[in-house]
Amino acid sequence: MQLRRLDQELEKLKSMLLEMSVLVEAAVSSSITALVEQDRNLAEEVLRTEKRVNQMELAIDHHAISLLALQQTMASDLRLITSSLKINTQLERMGDLGATIAREARDLMDEPIVEPRIDIPRIASLVQSMMRGALDSYVARDAEVAAGVLAADDAVDRLRTSFVTELSSFMQREPGKIRQALRLLTVVGSLERIADHSTNIAEDVLFYVRGVDVRHRVETPANFDTPAK
Amino acid sequence: MQLRRLDQELEKLKSMLLEMSVLVEAAVSSSITALVEQDRNLAEEVLRTEKRVNQMELAIDHHAISLLALQQTMASDLRLITSSLKINTQLERMGDLGATIAREARDLMDEPIVEPRIDIPRIASLVQSMMRGALDSYVARDAEVAAGVLAADDAVDRLRTSFVTELSSFMQREPGKIRQALRLLTVVGSLERIADHSTNIAEDVLFYVRGVDVRHRVETPANFDTPAK
Repeated sequence: MQLRRLDQELEKLKSMLLEMSVLVEAAVSSSITALVEQDRNLAEEVLRTEKRVNQMELAIDHHAISLLALQQTMASDLRLITSSLKINTQLERMGDLGATIAREARDLMDEPIVEPRIDIPRIASLVQSMMRGALDSYVARDAEVAAGVLAADDAVDRLRTSFVTELSSFMQREPGKIRQALRLLTVVGSLERIADHSTNIAEDVLFYVRGVDVRHRVETPANFDTPAK
Repeated sequence: MQLRRLDQELEKLKSMLLEMSVLVEAAVSSSITALVEQDRNLAEEVLRTEKRVNQMELAIDHHAISLLALQQTMASDLRLITSSLKINTQLERMGDLGATIAREARDLMDEPIVEPRIDIPRIASLVQSMMRGALDSYVARDAEVAAGVLAADDAVDRLRTSFVTELSSFMQREPGKIRQALRLLTVVGSLERIADHSTNIAEDVLFYVRGVDVRHRVETPANFDTPAK
């Protein structure tokens, strides 16, 4: 196999991951629209997408592992491949969470919209911008964009905390609507997890681009020895 | 590097992952005890463990990637290494979830125990047995034990659904205790996610042992081409 061929296969790995990310991004976005606009068809469409995302995850893992088997990879190729394996896992989970939101949207289809539901698009829009940033940083190998994603995670946590405080007052005022409120809590919890996955992707991108592991903000992976070459 | 040396390094990868799993298992178990027995010291101990788990994650990734760089790996080694990378990510998340439970336990330290808290150990004990099964199956390369973990996931989902139903009636009866109830919901949600991660590990073990991808229960990773050797 020529080196050029390996480069082509690495490009293909990236474009497979990109194709999957476009699908997942659309699923999350549609799930929120389905919830806010009570659009049943859109919720069903998201649930159909889930299977396609699952198949893509398998195909991407398969492709990545077959590239490792070629054993013609340099350090930077290895970082690209192992980061792609990790990002693939994150994307599949994000797709699952989009489906979770779509299921809640479906179950809330005929219920009157209560006040806390109005706050959800604001949280969703921040989470979606993190998601987009994480994937853009992967495609463009852009460490600065990836670092911006990490910075946004705290804002999502704050929005979620204030949402839960408001929701718990709402439930005290309207005990008859507690079931609906719990469904909205699941939606916001899913959005928070999508934000966490975006953060994880941004960390993987920083590792891939810079060769530096920014997770857990420690300098050296202490206490374990690493093998001699 | 001799082949025997590679085997030693692969054994070391497994034992690093095992060491981490022992720590994570203890953290999850202690977080539940801290919650049920209102043990503040134990909750603090779990929160201290989190940092150690994070460092182990970095060290294991580092070791696994350095083994890939040796480029003397056969297909079954590759499956072991890539599965270990995935299991590593799952374990770190489980450690985070143990810390989440410990934080809720700390915040509920001085509150009188309410009825739904009593159900939590039953759910926890099932989840912990899944976790143990997943890790045992990795150590023993035992596909049967791994398959048993997959089968238990539905039971956890059922327990969680009935917990949420009971909890929502409880909140309607006792609106003054809604905040406490929401904390318990976070605990049970965390346990459910630990069960999900256990399932993911069991799937990775099946891939590693059998070379067959059982995720999403499809036969072939359709629609994408894979590179020719």
